[in-house]
Parts: sequence; C-alpha cells; structure tokens
Amino acid sequence: MKIGLIGLGKMGINIGKQLIDRNHQAIGYDVNQAAVDELISYGAEGTTNIKELISLLDTPRILWVMVPHGVVDAVLSDVAPLLNEGDIIIEAGNSHYKESIRRYNQLKEAGLHYLDAGTSGGMEGARHGACYMVGGDPEAWRIAEPLFRDTAVENGYLYAGEAGSGHFLKMIHNGIEYGMMAAIGEGFEVLENSPFEFDYEKVARVWNHGSVIRSWLMGLTERAFSKDARLDQIKGVMHSSGEGKWTVETALDLQTAAPVIAMSLLMRYRSLTDDTFTGKVVAALRNEFGGHATEKK
Amino acid sequence: MKIGLIGLGKMGINIGKQLIDRNHQAIGYDVNQAAVDELISYGAEGTTNIKELISLLDTPRILWVMVPHGVVDAVLSDVAPLLNEGDIIIEAGNSHYKESIRRYNQLKEAGLHYLDAGTSGGMEGARHGACYMVGGDPEAWRIAEPLFRDTAVENGYLYAGEAGSGHFLKMIHNGIEYGMMAAIGEGFEVLENSPFEFDYEKVARVWNHGSVIRSWLMGLTERAFSKDARLDQIKGVMHSSGEGKWTVETALDLQTAAPVIAMSLLMRYRSLTDDTFTGKVVAALRNEFGGHATEKK
Repeated sequence: MKIGLIGLGKMGINIGKQLIDRNHQAIGYDVNQAAVDELISYGAEGTTNIKELISLLDTPRILWVMVPHGVVDAVLSDVAPLLNEGDIIIEAGNSHYKESIRRYNQLKEAGLHYLDAGTSGGMEGARHGACYMVGGDPEAWRIAEPLFRDTAVENGYLYAGEAGSGHFLKMIHNGIEYGMMAAIGEGFEVLENSPFEFDYEKVARVWNHGSVIRSWLMGLTERAFSKDARLDQIKGVMHSSGEGKWTVETALDLQTAAPVIAMSLLMRYRSLTDDTFTGKVVAALRNEFGGHATEKK
Repeated sequence: MKIGLIGLGKMGINIGKQLIDRNHQAIGYDVNQAAVDELISYGAEGTTNIKELISLLDTPRILWVMVPHGVVDAVLSDVAPLLNEGDIIIEAGNSHYKESIRRYNQLKEAGLHYLDAGTSGGMEGARHGACYMVGGDPEAWRIAEPLFRDTAVENGYLYAGEAGSGHFLKMIHNGIEYGMMAAIGEGFEVLENSPFEFDYEKVARVWNHGSVIRSWLMGLTERAFSKDARLDQIKGVMHSSGEGKWTVETALDLQTAAPVIAMSLLMRYRSLTDDTFTGKVVAALRNEFGGHATEKK
C-alpha cells in the first residue's frame, strides 16, 4: 500500500523503514530535511512540503502521523483541509484518549476517518516489529489493517473497538510499565543496600531465564548493567512523558484504586529533586516537639 | 549423578521427573506413599523411610530438600545425624535467607555443606526447566552444579556467592513479582471500570507480543482470561506465602525505600477482608465533623 508518513523522528523513521522492508510504498514528510533524506536513501519518497505529500497519495489516502502529542492538533489543522472524504488518518503517537475521541469526532464531521493507534515496543519494535492497539471506525480499520499486520510482530496488533480505545489501552499499558519498572528498580535497590555482593548483570540474566519475572524489561535491565555494572554513570532521575500521569488521573476519575501505579508515578516525581520540602517540614517538626537535630543546609 | 530428593510435593516431584529425564538417578523420599509411588513409576527409586534414603546414596551424598519453609528445620534435624562429613544438602525451597545462613553455620560445624537454592518458574519450570539462584560454599557448588545446569533453562542458574545469597535473590525476585503482578492487576482494574468494552484475553495477548510489558506474567494473564473471560469465577483475594513480606521487612531493616513493592504487599492484605476498620473509623469521623452519612451494616 501507499502511505504518507508524517513525522520522521526516532519512531516514525523506523516505522517508515519497516514499511519499505514489507513492500509498502512510504512517502515521508518532516520539517527536518535530514530525516527526509535518510528515509529517501532507504528507498522511500519524501518531502518537507505537506501539500506535496498529500498530492502524491491516492485516495483514499492513508496518513500515518507519528509526532509528539503536543503537536498533533497543529499537524491535523495543516493536513485536514487538504484531504478528501474517506481519507484515513492514523495517529500512532501517544495522545490522551480523550483528545483522540475529540479529534475523531471533529474529523468525522469532515468525512475523514481517524484511527488512534497506541504503539509499543520502542525504537526496536518500530524498526523490526511493533505492538499496536487501535481504535476507530471498523471500515477504516479494514482498509488500514495490512499496514499494522505487516509492521507488527506476530499477534502484535489489536483492533480494540471504538475511537479512543487504542490510546486508552496504550495509556494503561504504560501505567503497568511504570509499576513494573518501579518494582524492578526497587528490587535492585534492596540488593544494592544488602550485605551481599551481587553481579547485577548476572542477576538480571538469571531472572530473565526461566523465572516468574522474566520479561522484556528484565532483558533490558541485563543490557543496561552489561554496559555499566553498577550504573555509576547514570543519575537516578526518572522523567516521565505523560501516560503514567494520565493513567493515575483516569483511575481517579473512575474512582479506581491503583495505588501501586500511582506510587510508581509519585516516586518518579520524588526523583526529580535532590531535596524535598516535605523533608524540611518533617525534620522541623521533629525538632520542634522532640528536640531532634536537623541537618543544616 | 545420584541424588536424594526430600519432599515430593508439586515442585519436588516435577524436579524429580526432570532429573530422570536428564539421566540423573533420583531417589525420592516423602511421607506420602502415593507421591513416592508416582516418582517410582516414572523411573526413580523411592522410599517413605528417611534412613533407607540415606543408605541408598553414595558419599558425598547429595540431598535436594524441597519442602515448605516451616518444616525445613524438622527435616534437617532428622537427616543431619545420618550424614557424613562432606555430604551436601541443597535447600531448594523458599526459606528466609537469615534462616539459611543460620542452617549453613550449624551444618558447617558438623562438616556438612549447605546450599541455599532459590527456585523460580513454578511447576512448569520444575518440570521442564527452572531458574535457580544458589548460595553456599564454592566446593559444594562445584559438585552440585551439574544438577542445576541440567534442570534449568539455558542461562537459568546463578551461583550467587556466600551462604544466604541464593535465598536473598529469590526473596527479592518475589518482591519484584508482587509489584509486577499488582501493576498488571491494577491496569486491568482500570480497563474494567473504563467506558470501553475490552476483550481482556486479546488485550493480554497483544500486550505480550512486541510491547514493552511483554513478560511471562502477561502470558499467564492471557491464559487466565482464556479460561474465564472476566474472571467471574474467582474472588479478588490475594494470599501470599511470605517472601513479599520478607522483602519489605528487609527493605525496612536496610532503611531502603521500596514503596511500590510495599504497597503491592499491603494491597494483598487489604484484599483479605471485605470490610476494614480503617473504613469504619474514617466514615465515622466524616460523620462526626461534617454530618456525612455512614453506610449501615
């Protein structure tokens, strides 16, 4: 199939290359000429002109949008006026599911299909076989399914149903990921503070072979320790890009207890600062009522 | 090698069968004649008489003990007086690492070797390829290593070092498992309370193929939903058998923050009761200060 790929960042360019590997025709668009050139050199067409991109596609056009969630609306307002009824926009980034439902409804008024596709598996997945969770109209799904099938690992794609359901699943996937990663991190923290001398690379390797906690994340843990045996070169600052927060906000909206995922998010926030005001207040109170010494700045 | 297997429960009998598959000579011992008979019919020798078991082994004897942690000391006090200097006891159950260190030191005084072997992978692992984390004397390890190598999956065994280190690793492994399982459970809880209609078996399947959270546990999640689409037949009561608690106790002893693992343990305890006294107190207080209605029993 012929597909227009909007956004050639680390995910988009790998999806583009994989589409070409799978005998699809990819036409890449990005404002960054170097990224466009890279995809062209891999066998795609490409352009930095959005109108040219649209003109190169046959109707019903299929556009695969893979941009940071903050710029999705800007991309859509550029692209939608150039499209015709029946064209399909696949938004394969990490948008909030409520935003995806809003965009679906707006584009539906213009006769455009909108598929919200959560994508997992990281850059390697994008390049060699990803995992997709997709929501939107079944008619659009039927047309676009081969693209997902051909760039996913076996059993690695799911049409989840109505608009928003794909990004909802991806959000929860990431919430689970936060909890799993925190559990792994905390486990190694206890090992690090234990009286034993463990080789963490070997520990991660054995835990990834035959154990109950074997997982892709444990494999990545082994890889990380193989590069830096005690992670001496890394600070324990845990940034986040939104989906863990959305999971917790959604749990709150649904009055659903998800304390482990919530705690894993809050501990990411805790990691962003060397000192805390909480700590100052508690230390001050211990001093006020019990005369316990505080540590001076 | 010839090995005496003490404890033919669901783990021990499967290890016994696997040892036979791998051309070792297993001599099974259990108080349960039916379990002994089952292993004999698979090609082992077997007995319900502990003295007979010991007499059938050549020195240095190797005993593989796989019994609930509450009866390990009773087994050792039966067995140790029957052994000779240089014999090796492998304790492959789920003991607390401090108990394993104590037993190691006691048996060392009698000239006996003690290996603490954490075993993971469940019954399927015991049967077809397990994961082992082993602590104890390197001399004993060198003798016993083939048994672990032959019954583990590839890369699925680690000699972790001094006495206690094997069970310490297994304890932390289980702590991580608690956190991972809680994160998975909470994720599906949010799905269950969401406005979408998901097929949980399909969701677990896609999450286990190419996603960041793909894992053996996610595969088991798919299997569970394949048997009971919404787990209607199961109550959400989460029992525990000690190692999560030990992980949290150890984190406390080491003044180590492991709040996600701790929360996953506490939520297991929360699940054991339909109502809570916490809830009664908070409801009563809301009523006292704000006149908010309480729900009557």
